[in-house]
Amino acid sequence: MFDYYQLTVPVYTRALKQLAHILDKAAEYAAAKKVSDETMLGLRLAPDMFSLVKQVQIVCDNAKFAVARLSGTQAPKHDDSENSFAELQARIAATLRFVESLPQAAFVDAEKRTITLPFMPDKPMSAEFYLLSFVQPNLYFHLSTAYAILRHNGVDVGKSDYIGEM
Amino acid sequence: MFDYYQLTVPVYTRALKQLAHILDKAAEYAAAKKVSDETMLGLRLAPDMFSLVKQVQIVCDNAKFAVARLSGTQAPKHDDSENSFAELQARIAATLRFVESLPQAAFVDAEKRTITLPFMPDKPMSAEFYLLSFVQPNLYFHLSTAYAILRHNGVDVGKSDYIGEM
Repeated sequence: MFDYYQLTVPVYTRALKQLAHILDKAAEYAAAKKVSDETMLGLRLAPDMFSLVKQVQIVCDNAKFAVARLSGTQAPKHDDSENSFAELQARIAATLRFVESLPQAAFVDAEKRTITLPFMPDKPMSAEFYLLSFVQPNLYFHLSTAYAILRHNGVDVGKSDYIGEM
Repeated sequence: MFDYYQLTVPVYTRALKQLAHILDKAAEYAAAKKVSDETMLGLRLAPDMFSLVKQVQIVCDNAKFAVARLSGTQAPKHDDSENSFAELQARIAATLRFVESLPQAAFVDAEKRTITLPFMPDKPMSAEFYLLSFVQPNLYFHLSTAYAILRHNGVDVGKSDYIGEM
């Protein structure tokens, strides 16, 4: 049996650490090839799809808002103003600190909560639906897309960089 | 609190149905543009990355093997011989039938199981690690990558095609 803590805090911690690791490899690539951070952060797979920087911000926000909403805690604010790999790493580190600051006890009432997203005010959802059918697929979508953008553009990342240690 | 059934059968069912939906849109695109299924199934984001057909097969296999291993059931065999959208849809449908055939009671001993993957015989893992740190990120990775391949190549899919009904 799993509680809401087990399905969020350690899972998102692992995902955020792999995201940081993948971006470290992207920064190494950019340094070796003398490509600017601006160019790297602006890469995308389609003109009307979010660029790398936004994919990373959304992974962070999925993790941050999920643990905040499910624990009834206020999430820290971020301005989405990152312009470099160093700033993206700081964003991920800040998100990790917040996620890891929440103890298991903070999630004791999670299953009773109704979650209403700011951009879907007419669609309140159960905590279970929010966790399993919204946050979970979304977080991995943006993490996988960040990976795909880099992989497509020649950065030497492999599946184990995404999955992490087995 | 969640049991292993809740974290697998309904979650994978939803993911597989969205995959089928995305592939329906890809097949419509191919028909409208007179592109062969062979061309579509061979699309990829990098020369040394799996093509669309393999991404779809791996989503199916993650779902199939996860529920089989966690319930101690024999998974149905598939030959990975799909050459068309119709054959991929049949593969997804067969996977859905197997996943949905398993009742909640089949997962009662899941948490006690040790999972050893055929390609990592020296790394037995707990059921919890297998589910949360291996299958879950993997399944969404290949589903997101299938989406990304199509999106990058001009198929008119959007995020809601991936997430499903809210």
